[in-house]
Amino acid sequence: MTIAFNHPLNPDVEIPHYAPQGNECALFEHAWTRQLPILLKGPTGCGKTRFVQHMAARLGLPLSTVACHDDLTAADLTGRYLLKGGETVWMDGPLTKAVRDGGICYLDEIVEARKDVTVVLHPLTDDRRILPLERTGEVLEAGPGFMVVVSYNPGYQNLMKALKPSTRQRFVSIEFDFLPREREIATVSLESGLAEARVAPLVELARRLRVLKGQDLEEGVSTRLLIYCASLIDAGLPAIDAVRAAIIEPLTDEPDVKAALVEVARAAIG
Amino acid sequence: MTIAFNHPLNPDVEIPHYAPQGNECALFEHAWTRQLPILLKGPTGCGKTRFVQHMAARLGLPLSTVACHDDLTAADLTGRYLLKGGETVWMDGPLTKAVRDGGICYLDEIVEARKDVTVVLHPLTDDRRILPLERTGEVLEAGPGFMVVVSYNPGYQNLMKALKPSTRQRFVSIEFDFLPREREIATVSLESGLAEARVAPLVELARRLRVLKGQDLEEGVSTRLLIYCASLIDAGLPAIDAVRAAIIEPLTDEPDVKAALVEVARAAIG
Amino acid sequence: MTIAFNHPLNPDVEIPHYAPQGNECALFEHAWTRQLPILLKGPTGCGKTRFVQHMAARLGLPLSTVACHDDLTAADLTGRYLLKGGETVWMDGPLTKAVRDGGICYLDEIVEARKDVTVVLHPLTDDRRILPLERTGEVLEAGPGFMVVVSYNPGYQNLMKALKPSTRQRFVSIEFDFLPREREIATVSLESGLAEARVAPLVELARRLRVLKGQDLEEGVSTRLLIYCASLIDAGLPAIDAVRAAIIEPLTDEPDVKAALVEVARAAIG
Amino acid sequence: MTIAFNHPLNPDVEIPHYAPQGNECALFEHAWTRQLPILLKGPTGCGKTRFVQHMAARLGLPLSTVACHDDLTAADLTGRYLLKGGETVWMDGPLTKAVRDGGICYLDEIVEARKDVTVVLHPLTDDRRILPLERTGEVLEAGPGFMVVVSYNPGYQNLMKALKPSTRQRFVSIEFDFLPREREIATVSLESGLAEARVAPLVELARRLRVLKGQDLEEGVSTRLLIYCASLIDAGLPAIDAVRAAIIEPLTDEPDVKAALVEVARAAIG
Amino acid sequence: MTIAFNHPLNPDVEIPHYAPQGNECALFEHAWTRQLPILLKGPTGCGKTRFVQHMAARLGLPLSTVACHDDLTAADLTGRYLLKGGETVWMDGPLTKAVRDGGICYLDEIVEARKDVTVVLHPLTDDRRILPLERTGEVLEAGPGFMVVVSYNPGYQNLMKALKPSTRQRFVSIEFDFLPREREIATVSLESGLAEARVAPLVELARRLRVLKGQDLEEGVSTRLLIYCASLIDAGLPAIDAVRAAIIEPLTDEPDVKAALVEVARAAIG
Amino acid sequence: MTIAFNHPLNPDVEIPHYAPQGNECALFEHAWTRQLPILLKGPTGCGKTRFVQHMAARLGLPLSTVACHDDLTAADLTGRYLLKGGETVWMDGPLTKAVRDGGICYLDEIVEARKDVTVVLHPLTDDRRILPLERTGEVLEAGPGFMVVVSYNPGYQNLMKALKPSTRQRFVSIEFDFLPREREIATVSLESGLAEARVAPLVELARRLRVLKGQDLEEGVSTRLLIYCASLIDAGLPAIDAVRAAIIEPLTDEPDVKAALVEVARAAIG
Repeated sequence: MTIAFNHPLNPDVEIPHYAPQGNECALFEHAWTRQLPILLKGPTGCGKTRFVQHMAARLGLPLSTVACHDDLTAADLTGRYLLKGGETVWMDGPLTKAVRDGGICYLDEIVEARKDVTVVLHPLTDDRRILPLERTGEVLEAGPGFMVVVSYNPGYQNLMKALKPSTRQRFVSIEFDFLPREREIATVSLESGLAEARVAPLVELARRLRVLKGQDLEEGVSTRLLIYCASLIDAGLPAIDAVRAAIIEPLTDEPDVKAALVEVARAAIG
Repeated sequence: MTIAFNHPLNPDVEIPHYAPQGNECALFEHAWTRQLPILLKGPTGCGKTRFVQHMAARLGLPLSTVACHDDLTAADLTGRYLLKGGETVWMDGPLTKAVRDGGICYLDEIVEARKDVTVVLHPLTDDRRILPLERTGEVLEAGPGFMVVVSYNPGYQNLMKALKPSTRQRFVSIEFDFLPREREIATVSLESGLAEARVAPLVELARRLRVLKGQDLEEGVSTRLLIYCASLIDAGLPAIDAVRAAIIEPLTDEPDVKAALVEVARAAIG
Repeated sequence: MTIAFNHPLNPDVEIPHYAPQGNECALFEHAWTRQLPILLKGPTGCGKTRFVQHMAARLGLPLSTVACHDDLTAADLTGRYLLKGGETVWMDGPLTKAVRDGGICYLDEIVEARKDVTVVLHPLTDDRRILPLERTGEVLEAGPGFMVVVSYNPGYQNLMKALKPSTRQRFVSIEFDFLPREREIATVSLESGLAEARVAPLVELARRLRVLKGQDLEEGVSTRLLIYCASLIDAGLPAIDAVRAAIIEPLTDEPDVKAALVEVARAAIG
Repeated sequence: MTIAFNHPLNPDVEIPHYAPQGNECALFEHAWTRQLPILLKGPTGCGKTRFVQHMAARLGLPLSTVACHDDLTAADLTGRYLLKGGETVWMDGPLTKAVRDGGICYLDEIVEARKDVTVVLHPLTDDRRILPLERTGEVLEAGPGFMVVVSYNPGYQNLMKALKPSTRQRFVSIEFDFLPREREIATVSLESGLAEARVAPLVELARRLRVLKGQDLEEGVSTRLLIYCASLIDAGLPAIDAVRAAIIEPLTDEPDVKAALVEVARAAIG
Repeated sequence: MTIAFNHPLNPDVEIPHYAPQGNECALFEHAWTRQLPILLKGPTGCGKTRFVQHMAARLGLPLSTVACHDDLTAADLTGRYLLKGGETVWMDGPLTKAVRDGGICYLDEIVEARKDVTVVLHPLTDDRRILPLERTGEVLEAGPGFMVVVSYNPGYQNLMKALKPSTRQRFVSIEFDFLPREREIATVSLESGLAEARVAPLVELARRLRVLKGQDLEEGVSTRLLIYCASLIDAGLPAIDAVRAAIIEPLTDEPDVKAALVEVARAAIG
Repeated sequence: MTIAFNHPLNPDVEIPHYAPQGNECALFEHAWTRQLPILLKGPTGCGKTRFVQHMAARLGLPLSTVACHDDLTAADLTGRYLLKGGETVWMDGPLTKAVRDGGICYLDEIVEARKDVTVVLHPLTDDRRILPLERTGEVLEAGPGFMVVVSYNPGYQNLMKALKPSTRQRFVSIEFDFLPREREIATVSLESGLAEARVAPLVELARRLRVLKGQDLEEGVSTRLLIYCASLIDAGLPAIDAVRAAIIEPLTDEPDVKAALVEVARAAIG
C-alpha cells in the first residue's frame, strides 16, 4: 500500500496514485453516492490535495481546485459581469461551472475564506443542493454529478477564523495524519529516487521532529519536505546540507532552535 | 406526525413535507394573514429552512432565499445598475423582485448581515410596508402577497452582531428546537433509508451529545448530521466509522474530546 | 385622543392619524415656521416615524425617509454620477431632491450614519441653509419649503456612535416615550381589532416589562409588538401563544429570562 | 458692537454682519495681505463660519466652504476624472477652483479630515503656494487672491485625530469663544425677534450651563441654540418648553442631568 | 550665511536661496555624482523642502515634489490607466516621469506613506536603479540624471509608521536642525521685512520654547512661524497679538500652557 | 572569492558577478534541476537580490522581480482585465508571464504580501505546478523552465505577518548572512573605488555595530551602506562625515545612540 506522488521530474504521469491510510476511499465513494459534501482535515503536506485528485480521477470527475484566502470573494467562486463589446456579460466562476457541468469543486483551506464564500456553499451542501446567483437572478440546481469538497488544517487554525457550526455540520469529515513509518519511507523513496535505506533515517528524523510540534516548532515536517530533502541528496548534495535546506530552515528562523535541530539531524543521519 | 426531508438521492419530490413541532404552522398562517413579518430562531440543522419551504409551498407562494453574510450589501438585496449596450440598466435584487411580484423573501442567518441590509428591511416590516429605492428614486409598496421571513441561531450569536431591538421588535418570533426522540428517529429513518431500529441508537447518541453543548461542544448534533450518518451506514459503512465521519469529526477538532466521544459512541451503538 | 395607525390589512387609509403626547405638534409647527431642523429622540416602536408622516401630511409636505446605517454614504443622500448613453449623468439623491423641490427629508436613526452623512447636513441646518454639491460644483439654497428631521434612540446608543455636539446643537429636540395606559389600550385595540377589554391585560403586561429595561431586557416592549400580539389573538391564536411569539421571543433569547417572562405573562393575562 | 446673524426667515440679506470679539478682523486682514493661511479655533456655534463669511464679503472674495469628515478624499478637494462622451474629462474640485480663480477656500472642522486632505494643503500653505495635481500632471501656482482658512473645535478633539505639528505650524491661529453677556443678548434678540428683556434670562441660563462643560455636559450651549430657543418663545411656545426643546434636549440624553437642568432653567427663567 | 526664503509677497524670485547649515550641499552633490539616494531628517519648518528646491536649481534639475500620506497609492506615483476615446491609456505618475525624463523626485514625509509606496522605491534605490511597472509590463532603467530624495521628521514619528531598515539602509541621510541664533534672526528679518533688532527677541523666545519640546509642547516653534509672526508685526499688529496668533496658538490648545507661554512671551518681547 | 556589485556609475556591466558564501549556488542549481522552489532568508542589503540576478544569468533564465507589500494583490501577479477598444482584454501579470514563457519569478519580501498573493503560489509550488486563473478560466501548467524564488528578512519579521507553515513547507530554504571580513573589504573596495586599506576600518566598524543589533540598533549595517560610505570618502568627503551620513544616520534617530556611535566611529577610523 503506497502513496505514489507524481515524480516531480516526470509530468507525463496523468493519474495521481494514492493508497488509502484507512477507510477514506470507501468513505469518499459512499459520500459521493449519497451526494454528501466532504471536509478533509489534516496538517500541511500530508496528501489531502493528492487524495482529492486521486478520487476525482478514480470516479472520472473533472476537478476544479480553489485555494482560499482572505481576499477571495464569493464572486470569484460564482462569477461576475465583465464588459465585452460595450455589454456587461456574465462569466461563471469555478463553483458555478462545476454546478452546471458536474464534477468536484475543491476549496482548499476553507477556513481562510471570508464568510461570503462559506455561506455561498450553504444551499449547495444541504438537501436543497441549489446555487442561487443573486446577480443573474438564476437558481441553479446541482445534478447528481456535482460534489463539494473542502479542507482545512486544524493545527494552526486561527481563533478568529473557526468554521461556524452551521458550516461544519454540512460536511462528512475525514481526518488525515502523516503516513506510518514504512509507507512514508516507500513514498519518499519512490518520489525522490533515493534508495529506501538512505531515506529511512530522514523519515526517522521527521518523526522525532513532529513530536516537537506545538513546543519549539509551529508545525511538523511534511512528507513534501522529506521528498525535497531526499531529492537534493539524490542529486548529490551532502545529506546534512540537504536536511538544513529542506527540513530545518523551512521549519524555523530561531538560531537556538536551528542549532538544536542540526544536532538532532547529525545524530539521526550519521 | 413526521418531518419529511427530501431524500437526498431523490430530487424529484417537489413539495417539501413538514410536520409541525407545535403551533408554528398556525402561527405562520396567522402572521401571513395579518401581514406580519416572522423571525425564526433555533440551532443549525433543525429544520428552519425546510419549514419556510414547506409553508411557502402550502400557501402557494414563490420563495426566494438569501444566505446572509458580512459582505452581503443592501444592493445585493435591492438591486443595482448594470451596463448594457452602453446604458446603465437597473436590475432588481431578490428582495425588490419579491416586493414587486409577491412571495416570501427569506433571509437566512440575518444576524450575519451588515446593518445596511437589516435597515433596508425596516420600512418593509412596519405598517408602512414600503421599499424605498434611493438609487432609482422609486418607493415600492408591498402588496398583501409579500412577506419577510428571517432566521438566526441564538446559540453562537456573536456579541458584535446582536440584532438591534429596533430590528427585533419588527418580527413575530418562533423558536425551534430539535425534534422529540420518536419523531427524530422516524425522520432520520425516512431520509436515510436505514431501519428505525438501527437509527434509534444514533438518535440516542445525539441526544446525549446535545447535553454537552456549551461545555465541550460548541453546538449540538443536528438532525442533518444524523441523516448523513444513517445514510453512510445504510450504504454499507461500519456504524462506528460513520459516526466518526458524520458526527464526531464535524463536531470537534480536539483529540481529547474526540476520544471521549468515540467512547460514548461505542457504548451507544454497541 | 388616539394614535391611529393604519390598520395593517387596510392600505387604503392615506393620511396617518396621530394624537400628540404633549406639545410635539405645536413644537414641530413652530420649528417649521422658523425654519429650524428637528431631532426626535425615543425608544423603538413608540411612533416617531408615524409622527413625522402625520406632520408631513398635516403641513401638506412631501416626505422622503432614509433609514441610516453604517454603509450609507453622503452620495446616497446627495446624488451621484451614472453612466447613460456613454455620458456620466448626475442623479439627485433624496436629500438633494428635497432641497430642490421642498418637503421634509427624514433621516431615521441618524446616529447609525457615518460622519460624511451627518456633516453633509451641517450647512443645511444652520442659518446658511445651503447644500454644496462638490461633485457638480453647485451650491443649492434651501427654500422656505425645506425641512430636515432626524431621529435616534438614546436607549441603545453606541458609545462609538454618539452624535457630535456640533451636530446636536443644530436641532430643536423632542423626546418621545410610550403612550399612557389608556391611550395605548385604545390604540392597540383600534389597530388590531381586538376588544379593549382583551387588550388591557396586554398593555398592563407591557408596562411591567418596560420597567425591566436595562436590567434583564435591552429594550422595552414597543406598542408595535402589542399590536402584533393583539392581532394574533384577534386572529384566533391562544393569548399565551401570541404573547410568547409577539412579545417574549422578540425581547430575549435567554431561556431563564424567557421562563420568567412567561410566568409574568400567565399571571397578567390569566 | 453686534453680531448680526441673518434672520432665519429673511434670506434676502446678502452680506453677513459680524462684529469682532477682539482683533480678529485686523488679524485676518493682515494675514490676507501677507498671504498667510488662517486657522480658527473655538466651540461649536460660536460664529467661526459666520466670521469667514463676513471677512470674505468684506474683502470682496468668493468663498467656498467644505465641511470635512472621515470620508472626504483629496480628490473631493482637488478634482477627479469623469466620463463624458466616452472621454475621461477632468473636473476641478473646490480647492483647485479657488486656486485657479482666487478666493477663500474654507475647510470646516479640518481635524475630521483624513491625512490625504490635510497633506494636500501643505504646498499651498508654505511659501511655495503651489497645488500639484498628480493626476493631471499640473502644478498650479496660487495667485495673491487665494487664501486658505481652516477651523476646528479643540473642545472635543479626538485623540486619534490631532492636527500634526507640520500642519498646525502652517497657519496663523485665532481663538474664538462665546460672546460677552451684553453682546450675546443683543445678538440673540436681533436674530430671534424676542425682546432683549426676555432674552436676558436665557443668556444668563446659558452662561451657567457653560460652566458645566467637561463635567455633566460634553459641550456648552451655543449662541445658535439660544437663537433657536428665543425664536420658539417669540413664536408663542411657553418659555420652559422652548428651553427644554432648544437647550436641554440638544445638550444631553441623561434623565438625571435633564431633570437637574430643568430645575436650573425654571429658576433662571422664572 | 543666510537662508533666503522667497518673500511671501514677491513670487517673482525664481531661484530659492539657501545657505548651508554645514556640509549638506557638498554631501548632496557627492551623492548626486555617485547616484546615491538621499534621506533628509529634521523638524517641521526648518528648511528641508527649501534645501531640495535650492539644490535642484543649483544642479539644473527638474524637481517634482510629492507630499506623502496614508491614502497615497503606488499608482499615484507610478501611473495608471485612464479611459480616453474608449481606450484605456496609460498615464505616467510623477515618479515614472522623473525616471523617464531625469530630475529629482522628492517624497516629503515618506514615513506617512503606505508600504506599497516605499517598496516601489526599493529597486530604484539600490544598484539596480530600475522601476518595474507591473501594470504596463515595462522595466524602466533610471539614467544618471535621476535622483530620489525623501524626508521625514523623527520628532513625531509614529510607532506604527517607522521606516523599515530595508528602506532606511538605501539612503544617504542628512540631519537638519533649527538655524543658529544669528542666522535665524537674519533670515526672519529678510523674509518678513522686520528690522533685526525687533526680530531678535522673537528668536530668543523661540529658542526658549524649543527647549519645552517633548514636555509641554509636541514640537518646537518653526522658523516659518517666526516669519509669520514678524510679518504680522511688520504689518502693524501689536507684538504680543502677533506672538499669540503666530506662535502660541499654533503650538497648543491647552489653556494652562497658553497662559504660561503668554507670560514667557511678555517677558521676552517686553 | 568576491561579490562584485555593479559599480553604481557604470551601468554597462550586464552580468552581475557573485561569489558564493557557501553552497548556495550548488543548492540553487540542484533545486532548479529538481524543479523545487526556493526561499532566501537574510538581513537587508546582504546580497539576496544580487544572488538571484546572478543565478538567473548563469542559468540563462529571464528574471522578473516583484517587491511585495500590503497592497499588492493577486491580480497584480496574475493579471487583470483592461478596457481596450470597448472590449475587456486580459493582460498577464509578471507571474503568469513567467509561467507561460519560463524563467524565474522572484518575490522579494514575500512576508509583506497579503494572503491572496502567497496562496496563489501554492499550486505552483507543490507537485502540481499549475496556476489556475479563475478569472479567465485557464489552468496553466508550468513547464520545466519555470521557477519560483521568494525572500524574506527574519530579523524584523512582524508577528502579524509570519509565513504560514503551509507556505513555508513548499520551499527549499537558504540562509544568508553578511560576508566574512576579508571578502567584504574586497567587495566594498571594488564597488566604491576606495583602496582596501581605507575600506578596512569601515568594515571593522560595521562588524562592531552589527553586534548591537537587537539592542540599540534595529538592524546591522548592510554592505550596501558600506559601499555608500566608501563612495563618499572616495569622492572627497571627510571620512567621519561620510560615516555619519551613510552609516550612523541611516541606522538610528536617537541622539544618545548617535553620539555613542560617533565615538565608536572616531575610534575606528582614527
